[in-house]
Amino acid sequence: MNTYLECLPCFANQAVKALPAIEEELHEKVLRDVMATLSEMDFAMSPPRMAKVIFDIIKKHAGDIDFYIDARKKSNEYVLRHLDSFRAEITNADNPFETAVKLAIAGNVIDFGAKHDFSDEQIHDNIESVLSADFADSHIDDLRSEIEKAEKILYLGDNAGEIVFDKLLVELMPREKTVFAVRGKPVINDALMEDAQTVGMTDIVEVIDNGTDIPGTVLEECSPSFRKTFDEADLVISKGQGNYETLSDVDKNIFFLLKIKCPVVARDLGRPLGSFVVGRKLDTSR
Amino acid sequence: MNTYLECLPCFANQAVKALPAIEEELHEKVLRDVMATLSEMDFAMSPPRMAKVIFDIIKKHAGDIDFYIDARKKSNEYVLRHLDSFRAEITNADNPFETAVKLAIAGNVIDFGAKHDFSDEQIHDNIESVLSADFADSHIDDLRSEIEKAEKILYLGDNAGEIVFDKLLVELMPREKTVFAVRGKPVINDALMEDAQTVGMTDIVEVIDNGTDIPGTVLEECSPSFRKTFDEADLVISKGQGNYETLSDVDKNIFFLLKIKCPVVARDLGRPLGSFVVGRKLDTSR
Repeated sequence: MNTYLECLPCFANQAVKALPAIEEELHEKVLRDVMATLSEMDFAMSPPRMAKVIFDIIKKHAGDIDFYIDARKKSNEYVLRHLDSFRAEITNADNPFETAVKLAIAGNVIDFGAKHDFSDEQIHDNIESVLSADFADSHIDDLRSEIEKAEKILYLGDNAGEIVFDKLLVELMPREKTVFAVRGKPVINDALMEDAQTVGMTDIVEVIDNGTDIPGTVLEECSPSFRKTFDEADLVISKGQGNYETLSDVDKNIFFLLKIKCPVVARDLGRPLGSFVVGRKLDTSR
Repeated sequence: MNTYLECLPCFANQAVKALPAIEEELHEKVLRDVMATLSEMDFAMSPPRMAKVIFDIIKKHAGDIDFYIDARKKSNEYVLRHLDSFRAEITNADNPFETAVKLAIAGNVIDFGAKHDFSDEQIHDNIESVLSADFADSHIDDLRSEIEKAEKILYLGDNAGEIVFDKLLVELMPREKTVFAVRGKPVINDALMEDAQTVGMTDIVEVIDNGTDIPGTVLEECSPSFRKTFDEADLVISKGQGNYETLSDVDKNIFFLLKIKCPVVARDLGRPLGSFVVGRKLDTSR
């Protein structure tokens, strides 16, 4: 997916939200540099690729900062604290797989890239609303049969916190043929190998990292070993907007699981803002 | 009030929201020019002064467009359509002046600069919430006694639509010593002379324009005749954020009436986002 003009204020906002993590005397210089870069940006880049450009500018001035380390930890801790009740939702459901998929999407609300404030209560409310939401256009049954058929599944994680819900879904999948992927280096609150270890994902399936600090999956920048796994997989499960924005034009059997958080993605998918999506690009863009 | 770093995404967003009014082939060029200008902006400018810079860039490329002419008309029409019920709220109130002041602030929600979507229902809900809101820190009684004492009052309008509520308040003020001011040229949805005529403000008090297309009151850029009226007034009633942002540092007997719509103004006033303010700068910034 290309970047659109209306993404520019959002990039500027991401930069502003990252400023508190760096010395105040650098703020103005950093932000002027970000705006100058945005004035000359290449709109053929996907938004996550452009987000990396923005964070690289900040790092150029302020050093190699992990801006959202506390947010990642807090998200994991919050979801782990409520793990038993979330697992019970799945176990007690008429259709545990469907409920696990819905919860995995509910977990996708925890995204500091698109929304910068969240509370325990907001997360809880959001989970309840996802469980009772309309998934009429979703392809959860298709996803289940694809998982059964597949010989090698690559599950692309998105954020910390959310990764706990991903684990609950992975627990219902054939573990020996499933590989879970995280980002290679810190970017926003995207899940890393240490998050996969913290939440115990590494205990149940093979976990790899993609070698990049892009908040999405830009194949040409991923590590050779990640690309090999991607190429070998006959089913890719892609979580979140960042992975969608970077993989929506890739010719591959990819199921996208996400909540639509911005008008640009809503337009690209032909679905309303706030919708929950489970499906291939063709299934979903009607 | 100076412009802050976090105002930059907001300026970028104002430019994006104005794009649909101009030819699509100009969009990218305009927005790149806006971002380049933001990268070199003078932060000593107030936000409304900077907003004019942004709109001037768009006009440089696309011609002298009145971006929000439809929005202004619709706002006036909506409020006029419900005028009788709003007037009844005031007439039937225990304290009609207080209710008129609250309604005048409720009308301040109609601001396409800070928020770009609004519906009839949202406006109605907002009005109800303002009427029942906490005005504990407000200085409505002080404002009333200042109005009684004053020999010449200048009432600085803000937006179209809102101007109907301003009229309901002006109806309770001594008309012979009150002058109402609008902007001199179109900017966002700020009220102009034609709006004052449409809603009948010109039938009840003298109405002047400030000679500028800045969404605020930058005295050094206003017309000499406006400045004369401003200098002669011993009480200024200033509606909305734009007037606050441009007059907050002016040494004058100014009562600010506004809803705080952005974190920067909230910080400047030392009040929470969403608060309703009636008071002088000193009264309000505690």
